[in-house]
Amino acid sequence: MDLNSDLGEGFGVWKLGDDAALLGVVTSANVACGFHAGDPRTMRRVCELAAAEGVAVGAQVSYRDLAGFGRRFIDVDPVELADDVLYQIGALQAFAVAAGTRVAYVKPHGALYNAIVHHREQAAAVVAGVTAFGDLPVLGLPGSEFVKAAAAEGLRTVGEAFADRGYTPQGTLVSRREPNALLTDTDAVVERAIRLASDGEIVAVDGTVLKVEVGSLCLHGDTPGAVQHAQAVRNALDEAGITVTAFS
Amino acid sequence: MDLNSDLGEGFGVWKLGDDAALLGVVTSANVACGFHAGDPRTMRRVCELAAAEGVAVGAQVSYRDLAGFGRRFIDVDPVELADDVLYQIGALQAFAVAAGTRVAYVKPHGALYNAIVHHREQAAAVVAGVTAFGDLPVLGLPGSEFVKAAAAEGLRTVGEAFADRGYTPQGTLVSRREPNALLTDTDAVVERAIRLASDGEIVAVDGTVLKVEVGSLCLHGDTPGAVQHAQAVRNALDEAGITVTAFS
Amino acid sequence: MDLNSDLGEGFGVWKLGDDAALLGVVTSANVACGFHAGDPRTMRRVCELAAAEGVAVGAQVSYRDLAGFGRRFIDVDPVELADDVLYQIGALQAFAVAAGTRVAYVKPHGALYNAIVHHREQAAAVVAGVTAFGDLPVLGLPGSEFVKAAAAEGLRTVGEAFADRGYTPQGTLVSRREPNALLTDTDAVVERAIRLASDGEIVAVDGTVLKVEVGSLCLHGDTPGAVQHAQAVRNALDEAGITVTAFS
Amino acid sequence: MDLNSDLGEGFGVWKLGDDAALLGVVTSANVACGFHAGDPRTMRRVCELAAAEGVAVGAQVSYRDLAGFGRRFIDVDPVELADDVLYQIGALQAFAVAAGTRVAYVKPHGALYNAIVHHREQAAAVVAGVTAFGDLPVLGLPGSEFVKAAAAEGLRTVGEAFADRGYTPQGTLVSRREPNALLTDTDAVVERAIRLASDGEIVAVDGTVLKVEVGSLCLHGDTPGAVQHAQAVRNALDEAGITVTAFS
Repeated sequence: MDLNSDLGEGFGVWKLGDDAALLGVVTSANVACGFHAGDPRTMRRVCELAAAEGVAVGAQVSYRDLAGFGRRFIDVDPVELADDVLYQIGALQAFAVAAGTRVAYVKPHGALYNAIVHHREQAAAVVAGVTAFGDLPVLGLPGSEFVKAAAAEGLRTVGEAFADRGYTPQGTLVSRREPNALLTDTDAVVERAIRLASDGEIVAVDGTVLKVEVGSLCLHGDTPGAVQHAQAVRNALDEAGITVTAFS
Repeated sequence: MDLNSDLGEGFGVWKLGDDAALLGVVTSANVACGFHAGDPRTMRRVCELAAAEGVAVGAQVSYRDLAGFGRRFIDVDPVELADDVLYQIGALQAFAVAAGTRVAYVKPHGALYNAIVHHREQAAAVVAGVTAFGDLPVLGLPGSEFVKAAAAEGLRTVGEAFADRGYTPQGTLVSRREPNALLTDTDAVVERAIRLASDGEIVAVDGTVLKVEVGSLCLHGDTPGAVQHAQAVRNALDEAGITVTAFS
Repeated sequence: MDLNSDLGEGFGVWKLGDDAALLGVVTSANVACGFHAGDPRTMRRVCELAAAEGVAVGAQVSYRDLAGFGRRFIDVDPVELADDVLYQIGALQAFAVAAGTRVAYVKPHGALYNAIVHHREQAAAVVAGVTAFGDLPVLGLPGSEFVKAAAAEGLRTVGEAFADRGYTPQGTLVSRREPNALLTDTDAVVERAIRLASDGEIVAVDGTVLKVEVGSLCLHGDTPGAVQHAQAVRNALDEAGITVTAFS
Repeated sequence: MDLNSDLGEGFGVWKLGDDAALLGVVTSANVACGFHAGDPRTMRRVCELAAAEGVAVGAQVSYRDLAGFGRRFIDVDPVELADDVLYQIGALQAFAVAAGTRVAYVKPHGALYNAIVHHREQAAAVVAGVTAFGDLPVLGLPGSEFVKAAAAEGLRTVGEAFADRGYTPQGTLVSRREPNALLTDTDAVVERAIRLASDGEIVAVDGTVLKVEVGSLCLHGDTPGAVQHAQAVRNALDEAGITVTAFS
């Protein structure tokens, strides 16, 4: 099982999350590329730390929206979106290579991530941006249009699940604007992580047991107690004898 | 002799210069990378056209300043500046590679170009950004701190001159805020280009004859009659039997 | 009849349209406020010219989207959108007052204009931004949710029509991504303007005659021949004895 | 004596400092206006809180530099700088008025603050931006070109001192890039505040006693222990019988 987390999501003087601590826990770092967060200085630091820790670097591509942190759907023309994605991957690759590693995968962020669960044109656009760069694996929601489009283009796809997010009975994430969007109890997060890693199951907010095919668990870095959650999940997986390693 | 020009300097709906026409004339395209101009869509188009025309693609790196078009000195911390440069080169490289070519050189833009004639810390920072990416040649003002710092780091350096800009007797460019900053007469521009290419000489605004070691002539794309100037210079060099080819 | 046009839509070095010429023709200037276009320098210039010409100054409020020129729908939280609108009106008011006039009305731009034809939450948010500033009239599409919401809050509403845009039989604008979005023939534009001003009628792309209640005609400044269209419409209205004056 | 602090310096998802707590302590709030920090949502919140607490609202105007938090000198053309200042004041005024108050003064931020201690053209430009808005008092470094230029234009000027910043023997602030730039010991900050308020004296890093004419003490909101410092200073001033009230 892989553990991934969003990192490098500060901008200039503003910080978000504890990158250094999380890099000691996760195996894949989704690094912000400057469109929703992530100034060049931060991108370099995170790439250097990731390379030093043996953590895989992924491009966390986003809509161009610093003011909204990439959390607002933007009806970008698909041709432009593909180029926005390519731009971000290229920029991150420069820092990854300078740090002695490479961009190992792509994971869309925020509203883009949510949009391309259903939005076929934008899903295809993100895939077009990735393939314009090269044959990178993509990390996304299992069953999403994005994952389907990427597979259709011959890209390796890895499904992910969220140990700390609420799921609807349909297998989508509960909106952050609603209650139950985030689990804050560490034991509950750990229990879900173990069940996901062992049995590929997750329990929705109404009790429905969902079967999900996941190659990675996503742990958030910007929620209360994020680092403790992540560390607890990592420890529990290690103790349960589940190998934690980057998928890429 | 190489002919270079600043290209891709629109942003979104806003256009500047006639990229397609200039790409039929120059041998090196300094492509804006998004910090002073140059949205991803434009970067892709210019790279595709340059690749099709056999024109070398260079990274026209800049201060982060869309509102000021990179024409205002910014006292950026050198460590951050190096990362800003690396970010821009990386982003452009993605489009260049997607178009079947590669970033072949780096040329700083506007106020950054002018600052690193004398500003050693920023000159070293730009060089650090370039070397973090790889051993790219740099294009700059002969004798500048930037060219010296690049040479000291083992980079290939190419000096350029401006057929359409006024020179002070000290060999620096007349500020755009002053008269005589720009030559607008085509014959005068052509005459200077021939003399530069043949004899390595340029006449300053006070009549002083300056000796300059140049590997490239810069033609501007945003001045009145830019395309005609460029075409006239290209034709005159061709007729004079001077080989016009990319330096990189 | 009022004639309005979008003005001040350059940004920094980039220009768009011929502000000075249009200000000699229209009676209401929709001035970009910095979110999709319009740097402070340009805002001041347009306000000064408008004040000198006796043209009313309106706040052309937009999504925050320079890269997309405000032409992309953004799913902004309504509370944030209201504040974005208030910010833009306030900024423009400073320039209007400095120029000896005042912001006389508000007209949303681009994708925001289109969204709030139907999007009730965003329509209400724009109205909330306007009322937070004061009791300014609003200019919008007749029958839109925006105009309804503004009227419900007690604001004066003025419906506008587009002499140079194609209409669907339902009375909405043909998307700019489709053919027939723009009329480029001056005679056709003039004929529509006269019919609109005299009879309140406009002919849709399929020949349907639409009845519209309009207090203002919008003329675009960024289309080919914009100034000629505008001048021709103004001349024709003057010759037809229709009083052309600002609605505000 | 007035106590002022920089507030509203987050941007979007990113937070900085504890605005609510500081608004319970200071008498003047320097509110970021969107150029170095301060999204519209935050501007509204801070204005509403300030109005509720009876704290004066000031426009904390800045260079346009989110990536650098306004801490980098930018060689902006003075004409443009005046308009940038006017834009920011106007935007904040809209939120202040909506909250039932008004912008009561202007205080430049960061690198602009430091630049206009000596840079006459930019000092005059900031004053020009203020006077274009109206006759607002300005808050600045005593003896600075900015304060002199403002006084020469007939504006009320208020000198400020920093209880938590190191001073050079020349009376300027120690650069943040150097040690001794910030005092972190609460007792030392309180002692300086009392001495400043009572005797108009401050001790430089080398022990020199400086005489300063101050109408306001600035307390930082983004330093470790900021709120405790501010509260301690307020309490000590209250206990010493010094009236703490807004200068405006």
